[in-house]
Amino acid sequence: MEDPWQKAYDFAVEVARIAGEEIRKAGESEIKVQTKSSAVDLVTKTDERVEKIIIGSLKKEFGEGTHCFIGEESVANGQACILTDKPTWIIDPVDGTTNFVHGFPFVAVSIAFAVNKQLEFGVVYSCLEDKMYKARKGKGAFCNDEKIQVSDVQEIRKSIIISEHGTDRRKEVVSKIFSSMQKILCIPVHGLRGSGTAATNMCLVATGAVEAFFEIGIHCWDIAAGAVIVTEAGGVLMDVNGGPFDLMSRRMICANEKIIADRIIKEIEIFDVTRDDVQTKK
Amino acid sequence: MEDPWQKAYDFAVEVARIAGEEIRKAGESEIKVQTKSSAVDLVTKTDERVEKIIIGSLKKEFGEGTHCFIGEESVANGQACILTDKPTWIIDPVDGTTNFVHGFPFVAVSIAFAVNKQLEFGVVYSCLEDKMYKARKGKGAFCNDEKIQVSDVQEIRKSIIISEHGTDRRKEVVSKIFSSMQKILCIPVHGLRGSGTAATNMCLVATGAVEAFFEIGIHCWDIAAGAVIVTEAGGVLMDVNGGPFDLMSRRMICANEKIIADRIIKEIEIFDVTRDDVQTKK
Repeated sequence: MEDPWQKAYDFAVEVARIAGEEIRKAGESEIKVQTKSSAVDLVTKTDERVEKIIIGSLKKEFGEGTHCFIGEESVANGQACILTDKPTWIIDPVDGTTNFVHGFPFVAVSIAFAVNKQLEFGVVYSCLEDKMYKARKGKGAFCNDEKIQVSDVQEIRKSIIISEHGTDRRKEVVSKIFSSMQKILCIPVHGLRGSGTAATNMCLVATGAVEAFFEIGIHCWDIAAGAVIVTEAGGVLMDVNGGPFDLMSRRMICANEKIIADRIIKEIEIFDVTRDDVQTKK
Repeated sequence: MEDPWQKAYDFAVEVARIAGEEIRKAGESEIKVQTKSSAVDLVTKTDERVEKIIIGSLKKEFGEGTHCFIGEESVANGQACILTDKPTWIIDPVDGTTNFVHGFPFVAVSIAFAVNKQLEFGVVYSCLEDKMYKARKGKGAFCNDEKIQVSDVQEIRKSIIISEHGTDRRKEVVSKIFSSMQKILCIPVHGLRGSGTAATNMCLVATGAVEAFFEIGIHCWDIAAGAVIVTEAGGVLMDVNGGPFDLMSRRMICANEKIIADRIIKEIEIFDVTRDDVQTKK
């Protein structure tokens, strides 16, 4: 049977590349002529502009009414963040906005596609590195068209783990994040890293550069595409409490092997976050 | 007057590129055919082989007796780590060995040159990214021949800070490292990052991607080349106690501006390390 979503998958790769080029250009031309101190507006503008480019292209190609869209900027502007059975695009136009402002070399476009609440494919374009990661359910994961797979490390002591400090600076949250990281480092592991973007972190798991990545506080658009890429590269996805992965829960661990994820989960101090699909008044 | 060390500087760039190509090849060909669990031997072998290539080339070019060499592997094998007034090369063949084993994308060759205990130039080749950073005293800093300069951010709250967890896993050391990082994050700053290599971290300060990098426990060969690059890019170097930078002290903060460094220094919890130039029995 012909793949019903092949065309959408190919188109997503094309759109991600165009979006990434826009981001790169914005970084090169506009940030250089500003002081960084005034760059926050630029980020917001670039985020919004790139999301419009992506959603505009997808709507034009696939029709306004048939597909749904969950995008970081649209949700920020009040749109619902509910995953239905309809074909749905889940988009982060610029993952790693802090990196973008500073010129830190990890900034990604993340585009995922779900039908009947199941993720069908994911595309992450790490645009400053010019690395195009993609995966179609059941067909493997790729970086610049080379097949990628997770690391074969089975021993936690030989692993590198990624996590992020997040943007929440409340004392109790920061303390739990640091405490988790410290306990994981002292298992011990080879090291801790963080690229500053969840999408790229998941791709680093998928290529085998690190064994696991976990974070509490990420959003569905940060991880939806990465989820397909990690899975197709042979990795596992779970909730940080060891339960099944839930895209809308804002909690996730992905790893090369369940044994690595299970060991890390023992050290993670969980804190409360509001689910992505809980409707809040703006 | 003609620059007496221009030829040595040009030669160092050439040697760093050859060394980086060796590392890249070792990573591609050899790591892929091994399980990662057995890769530690490979790292040691690559480290030693690349250091021999670098020092061999330099001795051949500049004569055995006239120049001195301080290299990570040579020191590990019992050679002295004393900086004299003689022309001295300070070399880290593979900075970021953990990254190298795992295929994490930051691995650097670091080559510096000092005369009369003053650093004359530094070359850092981030070989997986193919970025050649270099700086000659008084002549600016460059990445792939483009002039680089530190960030213009003056406010600590708008900065990204880099540090590393290091390799010492003693509880009191790890606690101080995490405590420092947590206090810095909560100043607050935009974020914390870490590439896993001191040489690359210093180059990230030099390009303006981050505002500062500090670490206790690094060695002179990790930071000697980066020290010239940061200085020539307009940055500052200090001891983590606010005193003058001391290459052999194994403590360093570098930043875009003194005001940023001074604010971070307030939060750094210092722990003891043995200086590089203290002779210990092997």
